[in-house]
Amino acid sequence: MNILFIGDVVGSPGRDMVKEYLPKLKDKYRPHLTIINGENAAGGKGITEQIYKSFLEAGAQAVTLGNHTWDNRDILEFIGRAKNMVRPANFPEGTPGKGIAYIKINELEVAIINLQGRTFLPPIDCPFRKADELVDEAAKRTPFIFVDFHAEATSEKQAMGWYLDGRVSAVVGTHTHVQTADNRILPGGTGFITDVGMTGPYDGILGVERDAVLKRFLTSMPVRFEVPKEGRFQLSAVSIELDRKTGNAKKIERILINSDHPFYS
Amino acid sequence: MNILFIGDVVGSPGRDMVKEYLPKLKDKYRPHLTIINGENAAGGKGITEQIYKSFLEAGAQAVTLGNHTWDNRDILEFIGRAKNMVRPANFPEGTPGKGIAYIKINELEVAIINLQGRTFLPPIDCPFRKADELVDEAAKRTPFIFVDFHAEATSEKQAMGWYLDGRVSAVVGTHTHVQTADNRILPGGTGFITDVGMTGPYDGILGVERDAVLKRFLTSMPVRFEVPKEGRFQLSAVSIELDRKTGNAKKIERILINSDHPFYS
Amino acid sequence: MNILFIGDVVGSPGRDMVKEYLPKLKDKYRPHLTIINGENAAGGKGITEQIYKSFLEAGAQAVTLGNHTWDNRDILEFIGRAKNMVRPANFPEGTPGKGIAYIKINELEVAIINLQGRTFLPPIDCPFRKADELVDEAAKRTPFIFVDFHAEATSEKQAMGWYLDGRVSAVVGTHTHVQTADNRILPGGTGFITDVGMTGPYDGILGVERDAVLKRFLTSMPVRFEVPKEGRFQLSAVSIELDRKTGNAKKIERILINSDHPFYS
Amino acid sequence: MNILFIGDVVGSPGRDMVKEYLPKLKDKYRPHLTIINGENAAGGKGITEQIYKSFLEAGAQAVTLGNHTWDNRDILEFIGRAKNMVRPANFPEGTPGKGIAYIKINELEVAIINLQGRTFLPPIDCPFRKADELVDEAAKRTPFIFVDFHAEATSEKQAMGWYLDGRVSAVVGTHTHVQTADNRILPGGTGFITDVGMTGPYDGILGVERDAVLKRFLTSMPVRFEVPKEGRFQLSAVSIELDRKTGNAKKIERILINSDHPFYS
Ligand SMILES: [Fe+2]
Ligand SMILES: [Fe+2]
Ligand SMILES: [Fe+2]
Ligand SMILES: [Fe+2]
Ligand SMILES: [Fe+2]
Ligand SMILES: [Fe+2]
Ligand SMILES: [Fe+2]
Ligand SMILES: [Fe+2]
Repeated sequence: MNILFIGDVVGSPGRDMVKEYLPKLKDKYRPHLTIINGENAAGGKGITEQIYKSFLEAGAQAVTLGNHTWDNRDILEFIGRAKNMVRPANFPEGTPGKGIAYIKINELEVAIINLQGRTFLPPIDCPFRKADELVDEAAKRTPFIFVDFHAEATSEKQAMGWYLDGRVSAVVGTHTHVQTADNRILPGGTGFITDVGMTGPYDGILGVERDAVLKRFLTSMPVRFEVPKEGRFQLSAVSIELDRKTGNAKKIERILINSDHPFYS
Repeated sequence: MNILFIGDVVGSPGRDMVKEYLPKLKDKYRPHLTIINGENAAGGKGITEQIYKSFLEAGAQAVTLGNHTWDNRDILEFIGRAKNMVRPANFPEGTPGKGIAYIKINELEVAIINLQGRTFLPPIDCPFRKADELVDEAAKRTPFIFVDFHAEATSEKQAMGWYLDGRVSAVVGTHTHVQTADNRILPGGTGFITDVGMTGPYDGILGVERDAVLKRFLTSMPVRFEVPKEGRFQLSAVSIELDRKTGNAKKIERILINSDHPFYS
Repeated sequence: MNILFIGDVVGSPGRDMVKEYLPKLKDKYRPHLTIINGENAAGGKGITEQIYKSFLEAGAQAVTLGNHTWDNRDILEFIGRAKNMVRPANFPEGTPGKGIAYIKINELEVAIINLQGRTFLPPIDCPFRKADELVDEAAKRTPFIFVDFHAEATSEKQAMGWYLDGRVSAVVGTHTHVQTADNRILPGGTGFITDVGMTGPYDGILGVERDAVLKRFLTSMPVRFEVPKEGRFQLSAVSIELDRKTGNAKKIERILINSDHPFYS
Repeated sequence: MNILFIGDVVGSPGRDMVKEYLPKLKDKYRPHLTIINGENAAGGKGITEQIYKSFLEAGAQAVTLGNHTWDNRDILEFIGRAKNMVRPANFPEGTPGKGIAYIKINELEVAIINLQGRTFLPPIDCPFRKADELVDEAAKRTPFIFVDFHAEATSEKQAMGWYLDGRVSAVVGTHTHVQTADNRILPGGTGFITDVGMTGPYDGILGVERDAVLKRFLTSMPVRFEVPKEGRFQLSAVSIELDRKTGNAKKIERILINSDHPFYS
């Protein structure tokens, strides 16, 4: 069982990269399941139904989200019927949408869980306890459990990796928009990376027009964050190979495509 | 001009890795200057004079610090005479120590600047304005200017890289203890990486005993963070090659040594 | 039913004020129940069993806590047997101690609930949902429900007041150590004040030696926060009068005793 | 020399209260100078030139601001010509507007300084060092120096009071929108209060429609914060009496006008 996970897709540059490279990545890595973090897909802020559908059409089977889930109000319209989309499961009780989805891959099933950290992020329910609950539930159905842990602090992300080690197939971090180089298989068999990184503009700051970000840091005045439509783009992802029986990760490989790291088929 | 920079050295495991691998790294990368971030060198908390001197004896020429600068009180004793040690330059006026050091390498000189971010960290002076001031000063003496930007947020770190692009030789991030995979030469000629990563225990959480960290996240109760003395260790670093005339970076290479990434000479 | 609540007692100055004025306050306000917030009672940091018992001996019937609950390790020893002491109820599941206590007053019973806010404080469980749960439970036993909401942000504290208005007898805020002037009866009958204020040194900063606090703000360096043992002291409290049938608050009066506001019997 | 200071005026309810009560307050307290914090005057978010002028027409002589300074873009238009308006002086160098203003009262002059805290607020320059600088400057011209310290944390506000005690006439806190009961004359002669409180809706949360605030706390989802236009309103202020020779405060009186505290002339 191979899983391809594409990190935070930002605006049209990110979506263009998905369209251009997903077919090539499928040729190269042969994923049975492709998952995309889409929390920034609509101009950097949230996701629309059209974009969600375009991801499925482009060849993904599932979409995860994060702290930008509600940025585009369109989501309240369609989150109820978006079967293959998950928002952080530890959002407060009663929140629209769901935090776990089961995706059928031929005769098999993969559980996809989205969780959000609390360090340097708004207060929500405990992601560790919510993980326990959902992993217990999922483990009754399938050995293939994939977790996108959307969090800021490296400590919280590594803590989640070790906490779930041996209980899930993979814990991949998202949110910081910078790929980390620490992809590894933890001792219990869980594939882990602190952050998959961002898919979008290569010469902005985290995918945002950099003059605006600099103005913000220098003046502390409000600025409008726009995704640059022109320029060089990048794609960040991981390819994970799972043991067909145990669901354990056998390999977790980083994928980074940009001008400095051209794609090789 | 080659610079070797070793990321946050944590406790005795980190110091042991430096002693073991610094000679091998020197053989391989031929640095003219070796810099070590030592903010966690003393049991994870600050640095002592003995450790500072041991770094110089081990073959480093300079030490940088960060938000853990004051964790070990020994520092107030010796910071005044530690010529080759810098603490964040944007600490408040009147703070002991200095934020810039000039290291002689034969007939050349390298300016080493330490700065600290403010996002998710205590309020201090503006790191961008302090960078302007120190870079202007240093540029009158040398084209070789190295910046260790100790910061939490990926946005602030990338902002600093772009802000100083073309004005300094390199901006390397520290503090998150996880190496990022985004080492690159920015268009203006500045070598950049969001975080160099940590040198110390490989199976802890950011170098700290992981049961304590997990207990903290699960219970929110106070715990004692210890650096595990046994187990597998890692070393994180970057090797940067500078143009001898312009001081621009020509190459910035990531170095990660651990069980999953053994060292090759 | 009259309740006297004394705000965050800080160190020996605070404890001395309790000893000196509690008898006088009892004479004046005739409380059937006296509650003390004791999170800073032991040198500013937590509480010991001896201090807990001294509060009961001094004439209080219950003690509430807050974010400093664990500062003194002694508490882990005795929290299990301290029947009349509550720590924030929305601390994570499995935390030692309890968040609600029922105190018998002759043939009546008062439920005392301690909750902690999350804005500008560590991430814990939702205080509003935990309030729902405990208030529902308590309402089956008694119309007298008292809530000490230990929180930093005025918005979160006022939100809790309005959220519970009509469902509890009183919501009093603690933690900021400064008494607010907004004591009132909300339209549903709940007595409310954003913060009761601190009982301890009058010329420190929140009860702490002020040179240390100033040094911290000016230098961002670590300092030792001590409670000044000498000097002028103050006591902050509220007296609440509840309707004997409905449990609604009929009156909530601020009490502030210091050199500028001498006590009148 | 008497100064009347009206705390954070929120939206049209706050402006209406100013119009209704300022004449009555002038009759009662006979201020030589009236100052209004106007950071929330335009629908809760910033201030417009029209509102600024209406405050002067209503009888105020100066306006202070805070962290909401830039919320209404109109300000960038007129801040350059608004002679009697100050924004936090420790905003970064190069920020539009000014942080100190000198107001002529017959043959005398009052310096009005606005500063902003950094605890739980965005990182800006050190308010204590900026205070030193401006107080030194002002002291050369006048003994009457008034400081509006706009800050969240009670500790930072009290620290500023003690830091400037004896050097300025008054330090009054703003921003938390809840009046504190700790108005006092510090030993050096400076009038102090941690927070003056808010002028606007009496039954909202900090002046904002309370269902929205509650929804935010309960769901962590984005909500639109509106100022309720109907309902009961309040006014929060302080009246300070200064020694005509030394500029020291002789008296600082809290003013709170609402349904529970009707105005008495
Ligand atoms: Fe993102
Ligand atoms: Fe995110
Ligand atoms: Fe570190
Ligand atoms: Fe650090
Ligand atoms: Fe307290
Ligand atoms: Fe507290
Ligand atoms: Fe305000
Ligand atoms: Fe404010």
